[in-house]
Amino acid sequence: MTQQKRTVFYLSDRTGITAETLGHSLLTQFDGIEWETVNVPFLDDRGKANEIAAQIDRTAERDGLRPLVFSTLQQPEILEVIKQANCRVYDFFETFTRPVEEELHRPSARKAGRSHGLQHRLSYFKRIDAINYVLAHDDGVNPKHFSQADLILIGVSRSGKTPTCLYLGLQYGIAAANYPLTPDDMTALQLPSVLENVRSKLFGLTLTPEQLHFIRQQRRPNSEYASLVQCQREIRWQESLFRQCNIAHLDATRISIEEISAIILNRCGLKRQLYG
Amino acid sequence: MTQQKRTVFYLSDRTGITAETLGHSLLTQFDGIEWETVNVPFLDDRGKANEIAAQIDRTAERDGLRPLVFSTLQQPEILEVIKQANCRVYDFFETFTRPVEEELHRPSARKAGRSHGLQHRLSYFKRIDAINYVLAHDDGVNPKHFSQADLILIGVSRSGKTPTCLYLGLQYGIAAANYPLTPDDMTALQLPSVLENVRSKLFGLTLTPEQLHFIRQQRRPNSEYASLVQCQREIRWQESLFRQCNIAHLDATRISIEEISAIILNRCGLKRQLYG
Repeated sequence: MTQQKRTVFYLSDRTGITAETLGHSLLTQFDGIEWETVNVPFLDDRGKANEIAAQIDRTAERDGLRPLVFSTLQQPEILEVIKQANCRVYDFFETFTRPVEEELHRPSARKAGRSHGLQHRLSYFKRIDAINYVLAHDDGVNPKHFSQADLILIGVSRSGKTPTCLYLGLQYGIAAANYPLTPDDMTALQLPSVLENVRSKLFGLTLTPEQLHFIRQQRRPNSEYASLVQCQREIRWQESLFRQCNIAHLDATRISIEEISAIILNRCGLKRQLYG
Repeated sequence: MTQQKRTVFYLSDRTGITAETLGHSLLTQFDGIEWETVNVPFLDDRGKANEIAAQIDRTAERDGLRPLVFSTLQQPEILEVIKQANCRVYDFFETFTRPVEEELHRPSARKAGRSHGLQHRLSYFKRIDAINYVLAHDDGVNPKHFSQADLILIGVSRSGKTPTCLYLGLQYGIAAANYPLTPDDMTALQLPSVLENVRSKLFGLTLTPEQLHFIRQQRRPNSEYASLVQCQREIRWQESLFRQCNIAHLDATRISIEEISAIILNRCGLKRQLYG
């Protein structure tokens, strides 16, 4: 199949998060296409819509193929302007709103900005509290508060603990601490004593020695710390430890932060809800 | 209109992020319904599908109304099992895959886990680098590296700088620093000198004195710091400063972190792409 070059527009009244998430999900299912992406959030008046319609037409001419448009526009008159341009429009609300209205026997409000607006003060504070907890309990700091954690990630340096904890805090309001396993711990096959009383909250992150070596090389090239031998030693030891102590763990080598987070929440039975 | 109580299931082969984003966007358009949410990620075999179908049937009986199901299931045989249950299914891929296939003249791969899987090593490292930058330049730390920032948020204590920077780093790979404006700076209507050379990167976060007072009260109840008078003084001063120095700024009082981030990226002309 020949390589195609196509352009995709994400159009939204507000943040564009929904349009982009949905469109991305669909387009990653198609191989062999090189995508150029144009994000247009806050598209909320006809003047702007006319400009974007003109940009779509110019792009269609340049590419020799009409752009795809994923839209979460709530105002029909704005969407109408876009539909006049040379493009294929996939509108999420237009597609699903009526079927959902039928099921719920009531009309949709059709108002912009509801999905990622701030509606619940309580969940906002829960989220901020979780982020503060993550920041105050990163990399083994303040282990005396570990009993308040929802979850404690453990693993060797550069195994992905910090980004995962931040994601869990920001997206899910989870109070996630993390504690590094260091070569000093490696003298015995036992948990650092500070983790003994919080075993039920522990979750291990591991990865292949090759990937760990690759990541550490970016940070401290050609150090003992980054050497493949040292990475092999640390990974072998921590995986034995996880098995020996019966600690749930995950090989995160080829997984995104989103997937790591979803898997951990699922395995630990923690409530996962993006929009709490 | 009477208050309804309904249940919604989010079913996915993998993380469930797409299913939940879609359903949440739609359902927030309907008022007067109390939703119970059931998230089922990693639904990838028939045995599990049978269990979920039974759970859906029990829920329908309990609620007296059939559940809504938002699905991004890629395997038709799993989706078929769910469709036998007493529910209304909105399947995202079933709805959109064929129309997109028609437009692209090629078949969809119909494979699970593509959207939030790890495909591009480079964008992974960009994201991790951005998070590391944010953590190393929070709350005015290391201002000597501010020239490397994509963006520097400024504002008084508790104006939302840190969560916004973390979100920008995690989701968009933006190297966002932040610098607190403190009462010590208030002796003059001028920028702290350390910000003078990076003016073009500055963005101000403000909020109403009442909201700032409310937030600070959670942190240090009945302190001088949290008093309404002090909050009014700091906000009045910082908003004058933003105007005087011509610094783009935003009143974040009733806006979510997602919206604040999208608005900032839009106003600063920074490339915003969730899936880079």
